[in-house]
Order: sequence, then structure tokens, then C-alpha cells
Amino acid sequence: MKLIHEETSADNKVILELISFDRETYERTDNIMIDDLLRKIDRHKVNWINMDGMGDLTIVEKLQAHFCFDALTLDDVINDQRPKAEEYDDYLFFTLKMLYRIEGDKIDYEQISFILGTNYLISFQEKEGDLFDGFRERIRLDQGKVRRMHADYLMYRLIDIIVDNYYTVLDNIGTKIDEIEDCIYSDSAEEAFKKIQAIKKEIIFLRKAVYPLREALSKVSKGETSFVHEETLRYFSDVYDHTVHVIDSLETYKDLTSSLLDIHMNTMNNRMNEVMKLLTIITTIFIPLSFISGLYGMNFEFMPELHSKWGYPAVLIFMALVSAGMIFYFKRKKWF
Amino acid sequence: MKLIHEETSADNKVILELISFDRETYERTDNIMIDDLLRKIDRHKVNWINMDGMGDLTIVEKLQAHFCFDALTLDDVINDQRPKAEEYDDYLFFTLKMLYRIEGDKIDYEQISFILGTNYLISFQEKEGDLFDGFRERIRLDQGKVRRMHADYLMYRLIDIIVDNYYTVLDNIGTKIDEIEDCIYSDSAEEAFKKIQAIKKEIIFLRKAVYPLREALSKVSKGETSFVHEETLRYFSDVYDHTVHVIDSLETYKDLTSSLLDIHMNTMNNRMNEVMKLLTIITTIFIPLSFISGLYGMNFEFMPELHSKWGYPAVLIFMALVSAGMIFYFKRKKWF
Amino acid sequence: MKLIHEETSADNKVILELISFDRETYERTDNIMIDDLLRKIDRHKVNWINMDGMGDLTIVEKLQAHFCFDALTLDDVINDQRPKAEEYDDYLFFTLKMLYRIEGDKIDYEQISFILGTNYLISFQEKEGDLFDGFRERIRLDQGKVRRMHADYLMYRLIDIIVDNYYTVLDNIGTKIDEIEDCIYSDSAEEAFKKIQAIKKEIIFLRKAVYPLREALSKVSKGETSFVHEETLRYFSDVYDHTVHVIDSLETYKDLTSSLLDIHMNTMNNRMNEVMKLLTIITTIFIPLSFISGLYGMNFEFMPELHSKWGYPAVLIFMALVSAGMIFYFKRKKWF
Amino acid sequence: MKLIHEETSADNKVILELISFDRETYERTDNIMIDDLLRKIDRHKVNWINMDGMGDLTIVEKLQAHFCFDALTLDDVINDQRPKAEEYDDYLFFTLKMLYRIEGDKIDYEQISFILGTNYLISFQEKEGDLFDGFRERIRLDQGKVRRMHADYLMYRLIDIIVDNYYTVLDNIGTKIDEIEDCIYSDSAEEAFKKIQAIKKEIIFLRKAVYPLREALSKVSKGETSFVHEETLRYFSDVYDHTVHVIDSLETYKDLTSSLLDIHMNTMNNRMNEVMKLLTIITTIFIPLSFISGLYGMNFEFMPELHSKWGYPAVLIFMALVSAGMIFYFKRKKWF
Amino acid sequence: MKLIHEETSADNKVILELISFDRETYERTDNIMIDDLLRKIDRHKVNWINMDGMGDLTIVEKLQAHFCFDALTLDDVINDQRPKAEEYDDYLFFTLKMLYRIEGDKIDYEQISFILGTNYLISFQEKEGDLFDGFRERIRLDQGKVRRMHADYLMYRLIDIIVDNYYTVLDNIGTKIDEIEDCIYSDSAEEAFKKIQAIKKEIIFLRKAVYPLREALSKVSKGETSFVHEETLRYFSDVYDHTVHVIDSLETYKDLTSSLLDIHMNTMNNRMNEVMKLLTIITTIFIPLSFISGLYGMNFEFMPELHSKWGYPAVLIFMALVSAGMIFYFKRKKWF
Repeated sequence: MKLIHEETSADNKVILELISFDRETYERTDNIMIDDLLRKIDRHKVNWINMDGMGDLTIVEKLQAHFCFDALTLDDVINDQRPKAEEYDDYLFFTLKMLYRIEGDKIDYEQISFILGTNYLISFQEKEGDLFDGFRERIRLDQGKVRRMHADYLMYRLIDIIVDNYYTVLDNIGTKIDEIEDCIYSDSAEEAFKKIQAIKKEIIFLRKAVYPLREALSKVSKGETSFVHEETLRYFSDVYDHTVHVIDSLETYKDLTSSLLDIHMNTMNNRMNEVMKLLTIITTIFIPLSFISGLYGMNFEFMPELHSKWGYPAVLIFMALVSAGMIFYFKRKKWF
Repeated sequence: MKLIHEETSADNKVILELISFDRETYERTDNIMIDDLLRKIDRHKVNWINMDGMGDLTIVEKLQAHFCFDALTLDDVINDQRPKAEEYDDYLFFTLKMLYRIEGDKIDYEQISFILGTNYLISFQEKEGDLFDGFRERIRLDQGKVRRMHADYLMYRLIDIIVDNYYTVLDNIGTKIDEIEDCIYSDSAEEAFKKIQAIKKEIIFLRKAVYPLREALSKVSKGETSFVHEETLRYFSDVYDHTVHVIDSLETYKDLTSSLLDIHMNTMNNRMNEVMKLLTIITTIFIPLSFISGLYGMNFEFMPELHSKWGYPAVLIFMALVSAGMIFYFKRKKWF
Repeated sequence: MKLIHEETSADNKVILELISFDRETYERTDNIMIDDLLRKIDRHKVNWINMDGMGDLTIVEKLQAHFCFDALTLDDVINDQRPKAEEYDDYLFFTLKMLYRIEGDKIDYEQISFILGTNYLISFQEKEGDLFDGFRERIRLDQGKVRRMHADYLMYRLIDIIVDNYYTVLDNIGTKIDEIEDCIYSDSAEEAFKKIQAIKKEIIFLRKAVYPLREALSKVSKGETSFVHEETLRYFSDVYDHTVHVIDSLETYKDLTSSLLDIHMNTMNNRMNEVMKLLTIITTIFIPLSFISGLYGMNFEFMPELHSKWGYPAVLIFMALVSAGMIFYFKRKKWF
Repeated sequence: MKLIHEETSADNKVILELISFDRETYERTDNIMIDDLLRKIDRHKVNWINMDGMGDLTIVEKLQAHFCFDALTLDDVINDQRPKAEEYDDYLFFTLKMLYRIEGDKIDYEQISFILGTNYLISFQEKEGDLFDGFRERIRLDQGKVRRMHADYLMYRLIDIIVDNYYTVLDNIGTKIDEIEDCIYSDSAEEAFKKIQAIKKEIIFLRKAVYPLREALSKVSKGETSFVHEETLRYFSDVYDHTVHVIDSLETYKDLTSSLLDIHMNTMNNRMNEVMKLLTIITTIFIPLSFISGLYGMNFEFMPELHSKWGYPAVLIFMALVSAGMIFYFKRKKWF
Repeated sequence: MKLIHEETSADNKVILELISFDRETYERTDNIMIDDLLRKIDRHKVNWINMDGMGDLTIVEKLQAHFCFDALTLDDVINDQRPKAEEYDDYLFFTLKMLYRIEGDKIDYEQISFILGTNYLISFQEKEGDLFDGFRERIRLDQGKVRRMHADYLMYRLIDIIVDNYYTVLDNIGTKIDEIEDCIYSDSAEEAFKKIQAIKKEIIFLRKAVYPLREALSKVSKGETSFVHEETLRYFSDVYDHTVHVIDSLETYKDLTSSLLDIHMNTMNNRMNEVMKLLTIITTIFIPLSFISGLYGMNFEFMPELHSKWGYPAVLIFMALVSAGMIFYFKRKKWF
């Protein structure tokens, strides 16, 4: 759970990819060398450079040299950051967390950073594999408006895809909460508790990813940066709304989870109460009876009852009365 | 409990309705085809287009084409949104939650969206049936000011009706809290607890619906949009006040509910305490007595007491003294 | 506990009262008809119209017609509102809660609304009887500055009297907290708990009345309304300070109350602990003893101890040693 | 615990004191009559009028008449106020709480108010005795800058002394928290709990005194009042920083205290657990043994074991095995 | 735990160090006398004066006289302060907490203050030994940009090093939380609880150090001070981002810690429950059995069962049935 400065391991392979397009043309080159890539950049098109893995610093440095990035930007790309938007003289830097469920339930967090210039967008991902495959296809087929817009719209679309995926993570939390709710009164309490704690932890990490994103998007959508065109602002404002919606839902889920914890606590207390009641009922009925039988187990020579013919049945009847009285008392107290 | 992106099912029938009016005339057409509807719109009147159900996207697209809506607006209409107000070049978009009790206690949430142009108001509802029937009649009979005002006043009235209905939902919560309060000391603890949890959950969802609405109404009532006339601002400011009042009451109910939970917890603890006390009293009285009788149940040959004539009565009297002492002790401790 | 829209019942009698004064003259007419009242208003004096009860809407409508009130204002006067100040073209509307203890401990909430014009002040109360009798006398006797000032100063004085009365309600809470604190360690826990819950509930309702009042007074005291003269602003600022002081004290009382709840919980836990300890002591001492006596109550033929002359005293001594050991152990553990 | 409007009792003796000084001269008159005092005020010097006790209203009124104080100011001086700064036409009014430990642990709260004019400073204290004796001596000996500065610097110095004394109160809380921390695992739980509650209460009251003071000092240090010279602003900004530091520390102590409460709760729970474990161990070992011995205490005629020579030792060995098994089980569960 | 005004003890030795550099030259003088130091300052270079220990006030006063420091600044240097930035006419004062782990787990807090002039930076440390040794070497070897920049960049670098070290402290907390999480279900509950409390306390103190630092850095990075060049602002903005990141992580850790406490509480409750269940099972099975055997231990003369040949085996079988029934009941309740 080291939250910060988790540097990516050096043995990561680095994969470069260049997609250049304008209204008429579309070209995608995968697995390209950095020098070829820089040569292929066409200033009159939108150039999307995607880099998977941070293992090879020389590539990053060549990019830096070519596009004149600040050393601080590079630091932010390589190290773990909270989501933020920062404008530099020549570009806008934007970083956020991409997250998706892997292997069923686990959530994978990956930092993705964007550098947006006037005619290029560079995206840095920590690992291979992302959420953008469907979108790459849409660009190629010229679906949607992306081919008619600038690089800022491209960045909006990528962020939008990432934020949309938060929804599926949220939905999953919602489904789990429903499941727990259905079984919390019946199911094994211990299981329910662990599930609730797991959800709480997920929500804690999601908050950490989403709250600063709101700030960053607010900055961009209010037009405080010059690299986003007036006409694209509305789109960023839309992702901003989605982020706020995600935050609202997180808060709601947080409240629901804490309600579930209350219910769990109460169930536990109830069971304890049940156990104690059973113990008390058994003890309260049998201890007096045992005392009576003990009484007539005494070996005194002069105990007239022992010699009476009706002594034994009388004691049995007396015992039956005592226990009936006790049972009546507990019934009236609604203990069972 | 999927809070977001709960798209409406496609088999929903779509019902269109057009109400056009000005000071002199009023015309209502129900169950109209979309093309007829668009043809019937009279630019010199106020046109209220109401659409129940989102099943048929072609209708929405025709509306979009006719009124030039942004694609983002359409997305917002179709998908679940947090309440918000957003101004576009040609219209104001406003969305909120309509909620009413159905089948006794259940609360039904429905998203309702408004698009307000200069001479038209379109309302999108997810399901057939709404809160506006009485108001339609008032328009027809020319009661109130609505026939003398613009489309923005119409939107105000519809929002006002929706917010007023929040009050009835709140009242219902208040009544339930009263009921629980009356029975929490006497009633079955388990029942009370479940009722409190249900109210807590209702409040959580209401907060999610009402808090963002305050923001949205504040935006409109401060005159930040050009589609609301100066003279109508005061009315929006009034709904805004109502919304704040609803929020205040929600907070108060939240505090009361958490007080009730405290009381429930305390009641549970008290009962546990009672059980423990009973157990302790019984045990503490009878265990020493049992020990004494066990003592004289021993089979030693040389136990002089056993042969004394007064042994048995003496032991009985001693036992009576011991239990009297115990009972006196518990009485002084106020255990019963 | 319906917090909102609690309309006043229609059978309320309505009592009208007019007090007109300037530096030289003072005239008070009680139980006046509405038409007479409107005729008697003297534009060159300060006119205080006080109305007790909302039962007769025609009176309100006549006032509305005469002074040109907005329909929204009227709605606000009749229905339950959160405290607020609202400026209209011709008057300032101010509403707050008047509260006083009745019948010992119960607090009565009553909404009081003011409409402040240039030369008149109308006060609407829900019920007969208020806190202003002493003040009416002061006006008549020309004590204080009220006869030399305008209608806004009159409104200030009335609000000041209401807020001052919050103090007495607060003092009462303080006294109760002191009482509980004195007896919480000794008294019946259940009583203490109920008293604490009652105070908590009182504080919840007070907060609901006082927090919005701060906002409303802040608006007035910052001179945002044109119906309050520059020279009167300082006075409103003073009531504002008192309100903030009340809020501070409420928060302090809230913290103290939650401390008391902690203490109560702890006391309960302690008692449970005591009970458990007693149970454990008794059980732990007597169960081994009972076992020993049971052992020698067995009917085996060949138990040499039973036939020894010293068997019985030896067992008794052994038992004494065991219980002494146990008691010593508990003493060292400081259990009693 | 009446937090507000605690008027000072009328039998308080009032002590007046005048200190006039400039760079060259210093004159102090103690126990002076009000008329003499007013006559002795020298407009070309700094005049510090200190008044201990509020018993004699005629003195206050003479001061009011001489310096033209507003009636509201006088009210604020006499009644309990939250700390605040308020500028009037002719003077600045500042009020705060002076607090010091008396008789070991008790904290004494006293309201002190300042009225700062261009060449005078009046300080009103509720009781005789204050924190300023050392400072009076410093003025007389012309140590520090006070003799070279104006009345505003004098006020700064007095406030600074009061705030500095908050630190000693805080230090005391810190020491107590340390003490509790050292003994919470070993000491009597009940003692620890009461000490924690006492600290919590102290912190609640300190917050009430210090939070509004920050506001008041912020107002002064931002230069919003004309009675504080530009050159003195920095000093008020310094006291402001100290106040914020005090608040930070209060929050830290609050968190530490709530941590201590958690520890206490946990300790209590542990002890309960210990008690329960002991009870369970004893019961679980001896109840089966008792049952076995009871079995062979039955008086059936045909019980072959009873007549066997090895019956008794066999039962004894069996019992030993059962208890050894139990003890082994508890050992493995790490119950002792 | 005295949080404030912890003055440094007077026996501290004071060590002075001067590092002067520009693009071409670098000179470092260690253990220098104050007068020599002041003489060696070269106005055309960047002069970094580092002072370890506050024991000798005469040195501080000589520095004050030479650089014209305000008396308030000196106070702030010597006494414990909350992190802050304050601009004076001739310099910028900045103070924060330097913290590092010593002796394994303990965190050491040390106040470090900076005074930044146009061509000098003075750093005041409470104790010998700091985090800057590697950086001193970098300056000497002319690595990084520091030799080409002004004194403000030097200050940025030092603050950056300190804040970077917060990360290692945070990482340590993260590792510990992971450890606790791994063992909380299995390990000794008491150990886990103490570890959680220790982390909570660390977080409380870290918050106290980091929250005000954010404020201070925000002030500097927004360019509100004239001693930081336009080109250096971006760097301070970067440290500011790091600080916010640290705060985010602290909040996350706080939430995780409180989750751990919940789990601990739950584990404790579960164990209690287990204990109670065992007690109840044993009691519930054996008490009825004991009663039965007690019954046939009675000495009545006329008990026909006692004389039956099958009495004893019948009772044994009955007892076996009773306990089997009990065990079946507990199995169905899933008690073991």
C-alpha cells in the first residue's frame, strides 16, 4: 500500500505507437522506434503518440528534447501523481488514474498522463493494454467527430473513455452492496463483514483517484488553459459533470456501506443476545431444580420427607411446577 | 442499486403530447406523431412538448434536428444525470428527479429533463404518468398566471410542483420517525432497527437527489441564464428557498434518525444487561445453596451433623438465611 | 414531527392590533376590524400592525391589496418557512422562529414574519400571546429610542427580543446538562439517558431555527437592503452577533451532550462488567467446591477416604484453602 | 454551565487604575476616583485606564459620557460576549477571554474588553488580579518598545500576554495527556476515563474561546480598522499566528484525546473478555467433572461400576484426563 | 507532548557553515566564527548560511544586526511555530518541520527556518545533522541547475528535499498498515491494536506538520512574495503539488487506519462471541444431565426406578439422547 512514488520497474518493455490523422487521411504505426516516430510526425495533422511502459528513459528524454518538455513534467510522468492539470508554455500536462477490473474482482490502477500540444497528444501509460482499442477503430473508420477536430478533442475523448469506465467500477460496487444487503440478515456474519470492508477499501481508493480529477477537469473546463479550444470546452465540462456524478455516487455508496456496517454490528449483537438468552434460560430453569434434587440427596438421618411414600412424586410435581413457572415467565418476556 | 447510467429499457412505448397556449387560446393534442407535432408548433405561442418514455430514439433525433440540440444534451436526456442546469446557445437544459410514493411506502425515482427555448419547453419523462394533471387543467381553465407568462414560467411551475412533492415524501419520513419514537422503548427492537435503517436509506437517496438540485436552481435564480426573464427570477428564487428548506429538514431528520439509532443501541444494551442480571441473580443465589446440600450429600462415615436430630432443619434455616442475604444485597444494588 | 408546510388550522381567531406613534404621539388600537385599521394608518407616523392567527385569509388579502404584496410573500407568511430575509420592490420580508418555554419544559415554536415598509411594520404571528408586552409599554412610556427612530428600528427591537429569548432557552439547556452531569455517575442510568436524548433533540431543533437566522441577519446587517437605514445597521449587526453567540453555545452544548453520552455508555459498560465479575467470582469459587463435595457423594464401595475418621474435616479444610486461594487471586486482580 | 449573559454580581468592588506615559514620563495612579481619573487624562500621552469589576454602573456611564461610547458597546462590555473586534466611529472595541489556571487544575475564564481610541486604551476586567503585573513593570522601566509606540501597540501587548498564557494552559493539557497515556494500560480504567472526559471538556471550552478570537484578530491584522497603525499591523498578525497555532494544537489534542478514549474502550473490552474467559474456563472444566461425580452419586441398585474395586481410581483418572484435555484445548487457543 | 514553545535547551553547541557559489566558483567553510562568516559574505554570489543549534543567542543577534531582521522573525526562529511563509521588507521568512525516521521506527521532528534575501539564504536548524549532505555535494560538483540560479531556487531545493522525505515516512506508514492488515485476523489482537494506535498518532502529528505547509507553499507559489523570481515559481508550485499529494495520502491512510480499527473491534467481538458460545454449549449440555443424575441421587425410600434392573442403563441412554439432541440443535444453529 505504498501510495506514492511507486516507480515503475526498469524491466518494462516500452511500446511506441503513432496515429496521425486529419479529415482525409489516417495512418497508424505500431511498435515504432523513437527516432522513426519523431521523423514521421506531420505538423499539419493531429498526431497521437502513445507510449506503453516507462522502462526506457532514453525514449522519454528524446521526446523531451524534441518537444521541449520541462524537467518537472517528466518527473510527473514517471512518478506517481495525484490527478492534475498544469499548463506550461508549450503544452498542457494532464494526469489521471485509469482503472478497470481485472480477473473478476480486483481493480487495477494505472497512471496515465497526457501532454497536449497544438497538433499532438502524447499519452504515457505504465503498462501495455488499455481501454482505447474500440476508439482507435472509430478513428480509423471516421466515426464520431474526432477526425474533424483538434488534438484537444482527442484528449477529451480519451479522458471520457476512462471516466466512463469508472461507472462500470461503480456499478460493480453497487451490485456487491445489493448482494450484501440481500444476505446480511441470513448469511454468515463474518463473510458479510469482510465483504463490507473490501468495499470500503475500494471506495477509499476510488475517492483518492476521483476527487483531485474533479479539480483538474474544472480547471480545464473553465477555459483557464489556452490549449483547449473554445468549442471543446463544453465537452470537458461534460466529463467534469460525469466526474461529479461519480463522486456523488461514491458518497452515496459510502453512506450505504456504513449503514451496512451498522446492520452487521446489530446482527452480531442480536446473536450474542440470543446466546446469552439461551444460556440464561437453561441455567435459570435447571439450577433451582438441581438444588432441590441436591437437597434430597443429603444424608441426614432425620429427614421425614424421605420416608414418606408421596415424597418422591411430590418433589417431581414441585419441580414440574417450578420449571413451568420459569417457562411462563420467559414466554411473557418474549424470550422465545 | 446501480446508481448511474441506468438506461431506460427499449420496449417502453413513447407518448407525445403538445400543449400550445397564449392569453386567448389553448390547445392540447395527446398521443400525437412526432412529425405532426413539429408541424403544429406555433412560434407565437408557448409550446409545451411532453414526452413520456425514451424507448424510440428516432423521435428524440427528430426533435434534435428540429430544435438543433447538442449531442451532449441528448446524452444527458437519455442517461441518468445528477440534477443540473446548463445553458447552451439556443436553449437551457435542466434536469432533476421527480419522486413520489407508490404502493404505500415505496418511493419512485424518475428523471425528468427540461429543454427551455424562447417559445417552447420540452419535458422528457422516463415513464408514463406524472404529477402535472391538476396543473394541465389549471392552464386550460386559465387559472393562475401561466397563460400570461412565457415558457420559463411554465418550467418554474413544473419544477415547483415536483419540489412541492418532495415535501410530502418528507412528511412521510417525519410521520415514520414519530411512529418509531413512540414504540422504540416498547416495541420489538428488531422491527424498530429495520425501520430506522429503511429511513436512513431513504434519506441517503433523497440527499443525492436534492443537494445538486439546490446548485442548479441557484444558478438559474441568480440570473446566470438568458432564457429566464428578469420577472421570473423571483419565482425560481422561491423554489430555491423551498429546496434549501427540504435540505434543512433532511439534515434534521438525519440527526433524529441517528438519535433513534443511539436509543435502539441503548435499549439493546439494557436488555442484555437485564438478561445478565437475571442469570447472575439465579446463579449467585442457588450455587452456594447447591454447594451446601452437596456437602451433606457426601458419604463420609464420620459426619456428626448428619446424625443430629436438628441437622436438617438447621441446614434449611441456614440456607434460607443465605438466600435472604443475597436477595437483600441485590435489592440494595437495585437489581430488581 | 412534520417539519414543513404545517398550515395553521382555519378555526384560529384572528386578532388585529395597530400601534401608531411618532415622537410626540402614541396610539394603540386593539381588536380592530381590518377596514378600520387600513383607514387609521397615518403615513407620517410609524405604524405597527400586529396580526395574531392566520385563520381569516380575507384579512391577509386586504392587507395584500392595500400594501401591494407579492403573492409569493403571502405564501411565505402563511406556510412554514426557514428563517430568511427577502427584499421586494416595496418592502422587506423577514421571517424567523419565536420560541419560548411553556408549561415548564416544553419549547413552543411559532413562526413570526415581518413585512417592513418605509413607514409601517406588519408582524404576523401564528398564535395569540407573544414576548412583546413589556416592549409595548416601553413604547407608550417613550423609554429607549424607539419613538425617535423609524420602522426598521422597531423591527430590530422585536427581533432582538426574540433572539434574547433564545438565551433563556439555552440557559435552560445548560442547567439541565449541569444536572445530568451531577447525577450521571450516581443516578439511574436509564433516566440520564432519556434526559440526554431529550436535550439532543432540543438542540437539533434549535439549530434548525438559528442557523438560517444567522444568514438572514447577515444579509440585513451588511446593508444589502434599502429598507434599513444606515444608522440602524449597527443594531442589526448586534443581533447578528448574538445569533452567532447562540450558535457557538449550541455547538458547545452539542459537544457536551455527546460527552455525556460517552459517560453514560461507559457507566453502562462498567455496570455490566460489575455484574459479570460477581457472576464469575461466585461461579469460580463454588463450582470447584461443589465438584469436591460431589466427588465424595459418589457411591463407590471402595473409597478409603470415606471411612477415615479425618476424611470429613480434611475435605472441609481443603475446601477452605481452595476458596481462600480464589479470594486471594481476585483480590490481587482488584476485582473487589 | 450557563454559557451566556452571565452578568457580574452587583456587590463587586470596582477598582480604577490610570497609567499615562510617553517617551519621557510615566505615571501610575491606582485606586483613583472616576472624576479624578477623567481629569488626569493627558491628551498628549498614551492613557491606559484599567477597570477591575463591573459592579458600579455609574462609573461605566461616566466613562461612556466622557468618551462618547455607543450604548451597544457598553452592553457588550457588561454582558458575556464571544471574542470579537468591532470598529465604531471614535474607537475600536475588542473583547476576548483571559484564562489562567487557578488552584492547581481549575481553569478560570474571565472576559476582558478593550476600547482603543487614538490616545487611550480602556481595559475592562470582571475580577481583580490579572496577568499584566510584569508588563506594568516593564512599561515603568521603559523596557521594550511600548513607551515609544501608540495605544494600539499597548493593546497588542496585552492581547499577546493573554494569548501567550493560552500556551501554558495547552501545555498543561499536553502534560495530562502524557500522564494518561503512560498509565492507561496499567491504571484504574475508571480514573483514566474521568481524566479523559475532563480534558475533553476543557478542550471544548477552549475552542469556544479561541476560534472566534482568530476571526477577530484576522479582522484587525488585515488593517480593516483605522485605529491600528500600519506599523503595528505586523504585531497583530503575529498574535494571529499564535492563535492559529493554539487552534492547531487544540485540534491535535482533540484527536489524541479521542485516541485515548478508543484505547480506554479497548482496555475495558479486554478486561471483560478476560473475565468471560476465566468464567468459561472454570465452568468448562468443572461442569463435566461434576456431572461424572453426580453420575456415580446416583442410588440405582444395579450399577456394576460401584462395586468394582477399581471403579473409584478409574473415575479419578478419567476426570484427570478430561481436565487435562480441556486445559490443553485452552492452551492451544492461547486463553492463558 | 508539549506541542508549543518548546524552547531549545541552552547547552546546544552552535555550528555555523557558509557556502558561497556562483556559476564559476564554489566555496564552503565549516565551523566558522560568526564575525568571520559575516566578513566572508560576497554580495555577488549566492550565500547559504546554515546554523545548527540555537544555543548561542549572541550569534543570532549578530545575524539580526547584520541583515536587519525584525524582532518578530527572530522570535519565530527560536520558538516552535506552525509552518508558514511571511514576507518582510528585506526578506522572506519560511519555516517548516523536517522529519525523518531515527533508530528504526521513531520519527524525529525538527523545526527548520529559512530567511531568504536577494543574495543569501539562512537556514536555522535545531540540531546537528540534516538531509542535505548529498545536495551539498551536488552543488560542489555543479550538478543540476542550482549554480545557475538564485538563492530562491536554493531554498526551493532544500524544501523539496524535506518534502520528499515526508514520502519515505509515508511509505513506512503504508508498509506498517499492510503488515497489520496481513496479521489482523490471525495475530494477537492486542498487538494489532497497539500498532494501529501508534500509526494513528503518527498520522495526527504528520497532519499537524503538513497541513499548514500547504498554505505556506501556496502563498509562495502564487507569486505573492517578491523574493521568489517568476522563473522559480513553477518549482514551488511543484513542491506544493507534492505537499497536497502527501495530504491526500495521509487522509487515505487515516481512512484505512479507521477501517483497521473497525476490523479489530469486530475480531474482538467475534472472540467474545466464541467464548460465550463455548460457555453456553457446555452449560446447556451438562446442566440438564447433572440435574438428571442429581434426581437419582435423591435418598427417597420409595423411588421405584432405583430398584429396577434397567434403571441405570435407561438413564444413561436418556442422557445420551438429551446430549445428542443438544448437539444437533447447536449444529443446526451453526455454532460449531
